[in-house]
Amino acid sequence: MLTNAEARERAAAMLDAAGIVLTPAEREHIEIADFGLGRLDEIGLQIVVYVNTDRVCAKELVLLPHQRCPEHRHPPVDGEPGKEETFRVRTGVVHLHVEGAGDVVLRPGDQCTIPPNTAHSFEAGAEGAIVSEFSTTSRDALDVFTDPRIVRAPRD
Amino acid sequence: MLTNAEARERAAAMLDAAGIVLTPAEREHIEIADFGLGRLDEIGLQIVVYVNTDRVCAKELVLLPHQRCPEHRHPPVDGEPGKEETFRVRTGVVHLHVEGAGDVVLRPGDQCTIPPNTAHSFEAGAEGAIVSEFSTTSRDALDVFTDPRIVRAPRD
Repeated sequence: MLTNAEARERAAAMLDAAGIVLTPAEREHIEIADFGLGRLDEIGLQIVVYVNTDRVCAKELVLLPHQRCPEHRHPPVDGEPGKEETFRVRTGVVHLHVEGAGDVVLRPGDQCTIPPNTAHSFEAGAEGAIVSEFSTTSRDALDVFTDPRIVRAPRD
Repeated sequence: MLTNAEARERAAAMLDAAGIVLTPAEREHIEIADFGLGRLDEIGLQIVVYVNTDRVCAKELVLLPHQRCPEHRHPPVDGEPGKEETFRVRTGVVHLHVEGAGDVVLRPGDQCTIPPNTAHSFEAGAEGAIVSEFSTTSRDALDVFTDPRIVRAPRD
């Protein structure tokens, strides 16, 4: 069973290897999302949030080998369209599924923009992956997951 | 005299060395901003625009050794506040000046958010620098420069 501390260490090592520098505080506070399922090695994400204002958000998403982010969408909020996000792969291979657009395989330098309120899921290949996410404001608690058992809030 | 093609080559080599992967098309189209001053080695930027939608923008800014981005601000547009941008240094050292906040030295892993409509300028140290910029929409043609001789539109 993969613990949050182990996942955090592995993510930090992957970021180091990619030449992505974190501050000590960022490294210590890498967010672990297990989506409330308790199967972090299969379904989960390690996340570094660089900035999340009321206009802009930027993160690194680290996926361990074959780790998967389950299908979800970002619904409209307060009359604004939902979160718009662009995924850009930095290392590894990512299998991305987007509702209405199908499946795409993204390699380093490849990117894809997910329109608001559009279901999507993604999974890393055998070496794991690092994905930069550029988006409007993140409001994780409002994300709508296809699997009703999922709880987005991190448990750490 | 540094040409645009030389600046593009040097920026691409710096991105390579930092492990930041570009597609061949991105590499070929690295934007060169000389701000209309014709002194690119001193005053200029090399820019890779990953995404620029009507909500979100993300770029890499590459500064050659001691290259400087001259003071400017991003004014309000169509009733919205001006561009809000966060600079995160990836490699090198950056000396950033922000109106009302003074001077700050940013090293890899350091970042700073510039509020809308706030004058700022920045310069790389002796090794040059790579800066990730996470922001609201970029509308470069609307930027207001302190030096009235400056023209932001790239000349390539």
